[in-house]
Amino acid sequence: MNPVNLDHISSSHLLPEVQEAMIELIKNFRGNPSSQNIAGEKAGERLAKARESVAGLLGCAPKEVVFESCGTESVNHAIKGVARAHVDKGKHIVTSNIEHNAVNRSIKRLMQLGWKATSVPVDDKGRVNPADVEKAIRDDTVLVTIMHSNNEIGTIQPISEISEITRKKGVLLHTDAVDSVGVIPFDVGQMGADLVSFGSNSFYGPTGVGGLYIRKGTKIWPIMDGGIQEHNRRAGTENLIGIVGMGVAADLARQHMDERVNHLKKLKSLLLRELPKYIDEYLINGDVENGLPNLVSLSVKYVEGESLMLMLEDAGYTVATRSACATGSLRASHVLMSIGLDHADAQGTLVITPGIENTEEDVMGFLAALGDIVKSLRDISPLYKNR
Amino acid sequence: MNPVNLDHISSSHLLPEVQEAMIELIKNFRGNPSSQNIAGEKAGERLAKARESVAGLLGCAPKEVVFESCGTESVNHAIKGVARAHVDKGKHIVTSNIEHNAVNRSIKRLMQLGWKATSVPVDDKGRVNPADVEKAIRDDTVLVTIMHSNNEIGTIQPISEISEITRKKGVLLHTDAVDSVGVIPFDVGQMGADLVSFGSNSFYGPTGVGGLYIRKGTKIWPIMDGGIQEHNRRAGTENLIGIVGMGVAADLARQHMDERVNHLKKLKSLLLRELPKYIDEYLINGDVENGLPNLVSLSVKYVEGESLMLMLEDAGYTVATRSACATGSLRASHVLMSIGLDHADAQGTLVITPGIENTEEDVMGFLAALGDIVKSLRDISPLYKNR
Repeated sequence: MNPVNLDHISSSHLLPEVQEAMIELIKNFRGNPSSQNIAGEKAGERLAKARESVAGLLGCAPKEVVFESCGTESVNHAIKGVARAHVDKGKHIVTSNIEHNAVNRSIKRLMQLGWKATSVPVDDKGRVNPADVEKAIRDDTVLVTIMHSNNEIGTIQPISEISEITRKKGVLLHTDAVDSVGVIPFDVGQMGADLVSFGSNSFYGPTGVGGLYIRKGTKIWPIMDGGIQEHNRRAGTENLIGIVGMGVAADLARQHMDERVNHLKKLKSLLLRELPKYIDEYLINGDVENGLPNLVSLSVKYVEGESLMLMLEDAGYTVATRSACATGSLRASHVLMSIGLDHADAQGTLVITPGIENTEEDVMGFLAALGDIVKSLRDISPLYKNR
Repeated sequence: MNPVNLDHISSSHLLPEVQEAMIELIKNFRGNPSSQNIAGEKAGERLAKARESVAGLLGCAPKEVVFESCGTESVNHAIKGVARAHVDKGKHIVTSNIEHNAVNRSIKRLMQLGWKATSVPVDDKGRVNPADVEKAIRDDTVLVTIMHSNNEIGTIQPISEISEITRKKGVLLHTDAVDSVGVIPFDVGQMGADLVSFGSNSFYGPTGVGGLYIRKGTKIWPIMDGGIQEHNRRAGTENLIGIVGMGVAADLARQHMDERVNHLKKLKSLLLRELPKYIDEYLINGDVENGLPNLVSLSVKYVEGESLMLMLEDAGYTVATRSACATGSLRASHVLMSIGLDHADAQGTLVITPGIENTEEDVMGFLAALGDIVKSLRDISPLYKNR
């Protein structure tokens, strides 16, 4: 039996309707949207339909959507593309201390080439203060990039407030919204960001597909040059199967947004409410009130997150200990350090991300398993004995 | 009824085994190769298996394969990544006059940033002379990039001869082999190139997946920064469904290479042998003897390629008039101009690319349709009357 997936932030199943659309294309289709023949035209129609679906989810015009191969590509495109296109104005970028590595490393790459960056701090709930962003903006600032919601602690940033500042200052605003778009209501008009990165798997579409919203009129370079696909903003023959899957997933996310959010909120409340009955001495990280409805960051004192994760998996529950993209690094999460956790507490952190298919029984079963496992791990923990 | 596809260079169907593997993954699978849980491990195994299959097709070590989102991304990665990593040595690139736009525009992008390029000419069959490459290499040259086979005329370049020169000179060699890998026998050891770009759809795998061979020890920057996927050479959550499809397609290409090549050669010979019985006053472009077995470039005098293409499609045969990636540009193909065609002849050019599913009947039916259509178009052509 497959374990219960409480690690949707790493990977979600594909919805049946998404599967169906992709399989139909795999079986019956060929065609290159750039070809001038009938197969090409049909492929172009599929591409256009998916673009409309995604634009509908974001509340933007279809022409403002560029399909990319993942959220990481979108982020690279936004940051490097804006930096390159606005070099006449300056070479300074403002970001925050808790961004995803796609943002951090894109900026580091630019710094190797002479760009400068200012990173604003976050408070103990992981919130950026818009006033800090305003102070960090200089005359040579070309881009502010602040994530919409954090993939480790779920905190949602005040992007629309920040966008008022960036507009006033005449600076472009990018938000990495990979864990928000398709998960919570998200409207680019209301948000005010000029560029928004998103990924399809966050809303039960396939991995390897994402997109970048680019507000009409925004000057940006491509990072991939070649053919004239995506209105000359992203060259390369399209991953049509994946894009069509994302389109269907976008339609479903829009249609079922409210019920999904309510369901996830209910599971999250249940988990937080019942948790003290199963374990003690723990921290809940991030902004619980204004955070993602599908994410709980839990630091269990005196135990190792990896052991917890492995034993929970044996018990039938998949959770994560850190951003999946960060695996391989042994350092404590920069996000958890930024909100003031000490190293020991950070090590015992689980990221629990239920999905729309999870039930209250899943949550209760998880809590029971967690209680047993924490007890048995603490029984052998010298840290716990000597606390 | 679907038309007979003689435009495989734009788009091919997916082989049944490829479909099956992708559908199985779509239905039953979730998992992020970067996750430390069981689903992640299983995903990692699928990824590793696909990498071995692709490495087997290329004759290299699995670690030398980087999965990319298409041939265009691979080309951008190779050219921009090498240029960036070797800037201490210099900022000069050698290329040829008949490269794909992914190469041309990647180089143009670098030229906006201070790089220089020398483009070597080709002869009337589209062949690069290795001596010209040798002469073009300067002390500050960091990369030679010459395509393996041309997507419009099929000419195959003497890459192994060129590699002897680049090795002697201590310059890296990249070859855009998108239309060769999986189509004709291709061994990176024998070829001698340090970087090889390829795409999955050329060998009946999905679009939106490609790869870059990077010889062990080659210094190159990523173009996508973020997570540590692909041994730190290409960040971003993998398009696992597409990659697994490419892996299966690679295995099949390797197993059936000889029979496929023989079949395609037979179709090409038949087409060329019978053609004079159906039309006159035409040119066959490129190097017929040493060219791709699945490509015929035919310039029909006194008619427009687009009209030919549209009428052939009505008659049930899909062909291309130019590189699919170049659609939207109204200029005559730079490849055809480079081999000395005049503008008028270039306008009447068809690119006919049969696939492994095509039959001799398909070729004969196409020729009969072509004969009728050329006759009817010439009957109304003032160019033809006044020739």
